[in-house]
Amino acid sequence: MTKHIYIFSPSSAVRDKAAFKRGVARLKALGHDVEIDEAALATHQRFAGDDATRLAAIARAAASGADVALISRGGYGLTRILDALPYKAVAKAIAHGTEFVGLSDFTAFQQALLAKTGAVSWSGPAVGEDFGAEAGPDDIMEACFDDLLSGQGEGTGWRLPARDAEAASGMRSIHGAQLWGGNLCVLTSLLGTPYFPVIDKGVLFLEDVGEHPYRIERMLEQLRHAGVLARQKAILMGQFTGYRKVPNDRGFSLQGVVERLRGQIKVPVLTGLPFGHVPTKVLLPVGAKVEIAAEGRDVFMVWGHRHAHHH
Amino acid sequence: MTKHIYIFSPSSAVRDKAAFKRGVARLKALGHDVEIDEAALATHQRFAGDDATRLAAIARAAASGADVALISRGGYGLTRILDALPYKAVAKAIAHGTEFVGLSDFTAFQQALLAKTGAVSWSGPAVGEDFGAEAGPDDIMEACFDDLLSGQGEGTGWRLPARDAEAASGMRSIHGAQLWGGNLCVLTSLLGTPYFPVIDKGVLFLEDVGEHPYRIERMLEQLRHAGVLARQKAILMGQFTGYRKVPNDRGFSLQGVVERLRGQIKVPVLTGLPFGHVPTKVLLPVGAKVEIAAEGRDVFMVWGHRHAHHH
Repeated sequence: MTKHIYIFSPSSAVRDKAAFKRGVARLKALGHDVEIDEAALATHQRFAGDDATRLAAIARAAASGADVALISRGGYGLTRILDALPYKAVAKAIAHGTEFVGLSDFTAFQQALLAKTGAVSWSGPAVGEDFGAEAGPDDIMEACFDDLLSGQGEGTGWRLPARDAEAASGMRSIHGAQLWGGNLCVLTSLLGTPYFPVIDKGVLFLEDVGEHPYRIERMLEQLRHAGVLARQKAILMGQFTGYRKVPNDRGFSLQGVVERLRGQIKVPVLTGLPFGHVPTKVLLPVGAKVEIAAEGRDVFMVWGHRHAHHH
Repeated sequence: MTKHIYIFSPSSAVRDKAAFKRGVARLKALGHDVEIDEAALATHQRFAGDDATRLAAIARAAASGADVALISRGGYGLTRILDALPYKAVAKAIAHGTEFVGLSDFTAFQQALLAKTGAVSWSGPAVGEDFGAEAGPDDIMEACFDDLLSGQGEGTGWRLPARDAEAASGMRSIHGAQLWGGNLCVLTSLLGTPYFPVIDKGVLFLEDVGEHPYRIERMLEQLRHAGVLARQKAILMGQFTGYRKVPNDRGFSLQGVVERLRGQIKVPVLTGLPFGHVPTKVLLPVGAKVEIAAEGRDVFMVWGHRHAHHH
């Protein structure tokens, strides 16, 4: 099943070219037709080319006719160009079967696209860190990516961590709720702007990397005070990694942040979602309607059959 | 001129007790009647006591009848208790002559108070880091604090950095604009919530510590995308300190962030305000009406005479 994969760089400059090359090679080894955007390795300061260069790269990805437009990496850069993104062209490309895939800084692109057009994009891997991982790509990530390519993906499931075993007890099944979210810091940095989607009775998933639990709590508090959390049917906590505890914490922990949040909102807060800055990540359709059910510690999220696209 | 100074801890736990003691001793040496809140040295996890303890401390500060209610330190903690702050009691205390002074995490208290009641509080020093500084308190900080105590303070002035010498050229004088702001990260963390003041034609001042320029830019972009910056008559950039440049920056800098911002909004962006996580800090009345004028590189900001309060 050869697919056309278009690789582009909307955010930070690709510094780890070895990982990028490994990722491209892996996608080719899987049998795909890999097209690399002409500016994928461009650099300007921290960025993969200046703002105009990255905007043009996104426009080319939208015009590529590829099955998947996949980011090289995250980092920082989309916030700067939200005013000028080719939203209509991207939405049109998605309607014609190009799936946009990425994470981290890409969260800004995904929420803004959803807010402006309602188009569905995918939270998922990046070329370098995932397909180009030095230890080799993660099996589950690749299987989920393959599900997307084949149009077979219908959902995902995970087991709640033991300490959160009760989190889903008594939770009613959720039907037809819009899934949205991504990186907590990037998502929160859109609050109050026209790029933050207004989603009621949705399912919000969150992850982050390198943010201390006090900052995670402050961001969750911002979403709570803004009324965003109480409007959802569920909050799904992905992986929060890469932060350092400090002596000053004295028992203040991410687990405590989650438990406190549960005391403040009635919405179920389910942890353990296999998504974030970790090798084992599922793909999640930002903007799609999902069903969620739980049996004991097992959570199932289904977005229904998506037809494979043929070009 | 003996004044009654009430010291309280609304945010993080006081870990540097030596600095706290030095600060208290310094205020006493200046001739003041220093009252220390019973929970000023309380600890709970990262915090100066649990949420209820810190809320009670704020209520006691409001009921103290002091001339100044001064924070022991910033850190993190006010975000958690914004829903329950005794806004009316604090506003009433301020109306009766108690000036609330602090910075950093205190920014959340100040903006929420302004949004809820319109009451004016002061961005200024903290006990430990400022009055208790190991090298001794900064002269200018102490002079500004003394101006507040004596009711003589009418304004402040500073010189634009040489590289920004042209920033104020052609700027019209500003009259009767409401001053607001503080720590950029804390202020931005209120956007989209009921605790973010809606201020048109105001003067917004910002500072931060330990935030890389790309994060500063992302926060400024959030304020810009939310329409907050364009609504102001001036943006005053205080001191941005304590971040580390990284090899990945490749020329991306805070100066570049400011220059880019100037290209995006018509509002004057004036740098060099002596306020932030630095020893030399002026006191600034959050919520007060100010006048601003510039002559070459010299900027003058006046908030008019405030009467000394007598108890």
